[in-house]
Amino acid sequence: MDEERLKRQFAFSREIDKEKNISRMTYISDGTRRENDAEHAWHAALMTVLLAEYSNEPIDVLRTVTMLLLHDLVEIDAGDAFAYDPEAQAAQHEKEIRAAERIYGLLPEDQRAYFRGLWEEFEAGTTPEARFARVMDNLQPLMLNDMQHGRLWREQGVALRQVLERNRRTPDGSAALWDYARRTLIQPNVEAGNIKDE
Amino acid sequence: MDEERLKRQFAFSREIDKEKNISRMTYISDGTRRENDAEHAWHAALMTVLLAEYSNEPIDVLRTVTMLLLHDLVEIDAGDAFAYDPEAQAAQHEKEIRAAERIYGLLPEDQRAYFRGLWEEFEAGTTPEARFARVMDNLQPLMLNDMQHGRLWREQGVALRQVLERNRRTPDGSAALWDYARRTLIQPNVEAGNIKDE
Repeated sequence: MDEERLKRQFAFSREIDKEKNISRMTYISDGTRRENDAEHAWHAALMTVLLAEYSNEPIDVLRTVTMLLLHDLVEIDAGDAFAYDPEAQAAQHEKEIRAAERIYGLLPEDQRAYFRGLWEEFEAGTTPEARFARVMDNLQPLMLNDMQHGRLWREQGVALRQVLERNRRTPDGSAALWDYARRTLIQPNVEAGNIKDE
Repeated sequence: MDEERLKRQFAFSREIDKEKNISRMTYISDGTRRENDAEHAWHAALMTVLLAEYSNEPIDVLRTVTMLLLHDLVEIDAGDAFAYDPEAQAAQHEKEIRAAERIYGLLPEDQRAYFRGLWEEFEAGTTPEARFARVMDNLQPLMLNDMQHGRLWREQGVALRQVLERNRRTPDGSAALWDYARRTLIQPNVEAGNIKDE
């Protein structure tokens, strides 16, 4: 057994525990608090196994699930930037690169390359797996926001064009899920005035 | 598109959000609060991708990860039974069967059979995937308890024989990880008096 390898794998396993303290804007469905990145990743990963049949293209489900499990680890250092805050989003990328360097740097070399590569693939969104993972990353909070009757959208004054801009690549990953999301999650909240249609 | 199928899949996706409110005994690594089932499942699932190489037998990693993502869903109805509380453990099984009936019952029939089957496989622990999943389910809280300098073990007066009993099948899933856990997570806490050696 390679003790040094195991030590590095456990150093990483310990470090990622901090993701449980990275709060997102989204409320959990009972509205008692916001969710954190670890909960979001779990929810989106399990939904991926459940909904993979709706990917436009065939996908390697394990690769997609792994992407979702790790896609927010960089926020341990960089924090969460609200999806509808353009300034926060702009500053985010450089912080995340530095975070990836440190956090994936804890791993043995082969796994550092593999896991960091998966994160970069997710960010680039240019493979079938990354395209579907991004659908899940967007769909899960749309669903929670709808369950809370649009509370977050109202509180933040979010407009339909922002939701559509955020989801501009969602149909590339899953035309079926985008159709369903528009009809059952977005449109009713526009009609109820929870999402501003300016 | 089968609208009824999608509706059922989303009913399940919404329902499982409640797992974020099921608290476990384990403290997160900074000790500020206990972790919940969704966080635990996320952590154990990502550790599975990272540590699968240590399984005694070859495993289907996606199957194992999926098992971990869903293994505690029944606790939405049944609650968490503390690993070192034999009375709570004994009453748990029947409650969990009823919970599985209801929660997996939300799914379309094919997925109900598949996901409930994975949970039953995890519980039975008789396949290579289930054996390794159970290693992860036990290893993740051992690691967190050690990070908190044995606080939970001290608070609950946990004895070494209880830790060993809880982990009696861990070596069947991974001899290497059990060896590592004994040497680096359990033994130091016995020596420090955090785990009682009666």
